[in-house]
Amino acid sequence: MPFEGNGNHFGTVYAGVIFTLAEVLGGAMSFSSFDSSTHYPLIRGMQISYLKPGRGALTASTSLDDATIERVLAEAGPDRKAAFELHAEVVDEAGVVVATTVGDYQIRPFGS
Amino acid sequence: MPFEGNGNHFGTVYAGVIFTLAEVLGGAMSFSSFDSSTHYPLIRGMQISYLKPGRGALTASTSLDDATIERVLAEAGPDRKAAFELHAEVVDEAGVVVATTVGDYQIRPFGS
Repeated sequence: MPFEGNGNHFGTVYAGVIFTLAEVLGGAMSFSSFDSSTHYPLIRGMQISYLKPGRGALTASTSLDDATIERVLAEAGPDRKAAFELHAEVVDEAGVVVATTVGDYQIRPFGS
Repeated sequence: MPFEGNGNHFGTVYAGVIFTLAEVLGGAMSFSSFDSSTHYPLIRGMQISYLKPGRGALTASTSLDDATIERVLAEAGPDRKAAFELHAEVVDEAGVVVATTVGDYQIRPFGS
């Protein structure tokens, strides 16, 4: 994500923008790992820690281990939801960690 | 904050937008309660809980009690920072609580 349009007068990226950059990974991860034809992702809560000012272009990354993906797939039946936790990290162009997040997500069957 | 431009295809307001609506109150509260000619506000971290889907126009509110304001003013000297916690609530037009947040903020003297 570029700085332009997302920064304040301190030359740093807005806190809400950094949050959003990390938060949307929950949806992306859900669509790539689970069945988006039967379940949709939902965020229940998130903790963000701001470690350094965010300057320049920022990148967020996360991962879900195979065991968690298998557990969620097993739990999330046709009319059952399942929860998963996602840890994400936002770094600047030098690789400095600007923020870390822990998000509580669910996938829920459509209609619920 | 209006729904238009801030919502997704579920008809609900984006998680990051709800976060931002609550988060910016820390800066607003800081500018209204402390000395913005000597200190600037900084967010260290935030926990957000999403309780209900956010539909329609949303409003965020918060408050700082007088004792906290006095403590922060006493702690924040010419070259000293001070921390405060802010609890905020985001409600819809019917008054339903959509999200709650607990933010960890600091005010810091300029140049630090």
